[in-house]
Amino acid sequence: MLPRTYDNQVCSIARALEAIGDRWTMLVIRDAFVGVRRFDEFQQRLGIARNVLTDRLSRLVDEGILEKREYQERPQRFEYRLTPKGVDLFPVLVSLMKWGDRHAPDEGGPPMAVVHQDCGGEVDERLLCTRCGEPVTALNADARQLVPNAG
Amino acid sequence: MLPRTYDNQVCSIARALEAIGDRWTMLVIRDAFVGVRRFDEFQQRLGIARNVLTDRLSRLVDEGILEKREYQERPQRFEYRLTPKGVDLFPVLVSLMKWGDRHAPDEGGPPMAVVHQDCGGEVDERLLCTRCGEPVTALNADARQLVPNAG
Repeated sequence: MLPRTYDNQVCSIARALEAIGDRWTMLVIRDAFVGVRRFDEFQQRLGIARNVLTDRLSRLVDEGILEKREYQERPQRFEYRLTPKGVDLFPVLVSLMKWGDRHAPDEGGPPMAVVHQDCGGEVDERLLCTRCGEPVTALNADARQLVPNAG
Repeated sequence: MLPRTYDNQVCSIARALEAIGDRWTMLVIRDAFVGVRRFDEFQQRLGIARNVLTDRLSRLVDEGILEKREYQERPQRFEYRLTPKGVDLFPVLVSLMKWGDRHAPDEGGPPMAVVHQDCGGEVDERLLCTRCGEPVTALNADARQLVPNAG
């Protein structure tokens, strides 16, 4: 156990949660990691109310986690992409996934694995490839679907 | 980037967030990791409304993340301790802290470091000791306060 040596006023966990401490926010980030970029697709995948999604997306843009880019002029259309700050949330998502795999599992086992692009080995909790031992990052990771009916 | 190979209906991240997807919930868990056990102390440290704290604690007990134990009979008093399932959230908290250190820093730098009990080396994002290279877990970690005025 950790001793009580700090106060909640100055805490990086509290500060991180100010940016991303909301279930929808984290699921928006999850979907951004698998390549979702457009409002309607986020909305459809998450089944989230449009006003809630608008709020979460604009908060993520304000926090510098997503970048809003115009991809079409007429009519004007925008997409949302992870910034480097957003990509750095990869370890948070992987650790959440691993915890969920272990403690809140689906009947059919883990629905998805994050694997090392180079060799196909699965990523462990320390973000190391269980096959070759190399560090895995958001940039050399793939998601592999393990539950056929999940899609 | 991860390809879109899974659906949000079957997702360990979504399931994990059902258990802990709330800012207060995560801060309660953070405080449990530094040894806070009693209602009044959680309440005082977090500055959270008592009814909200009651709700979050009982949800964490229902989820099997905290265990409620009687520590005094008359008057009856309870304390809350992390279960093994709760202790397993250590990587999530460390990854959140590391992200906050980097992207939502305090002016004075990181307020706290998680260090390896055995050698005092700091823990990195992969939960390895940066001094001796050993894996660090909740059971062999210490929190070291870096900002003197944080307490």
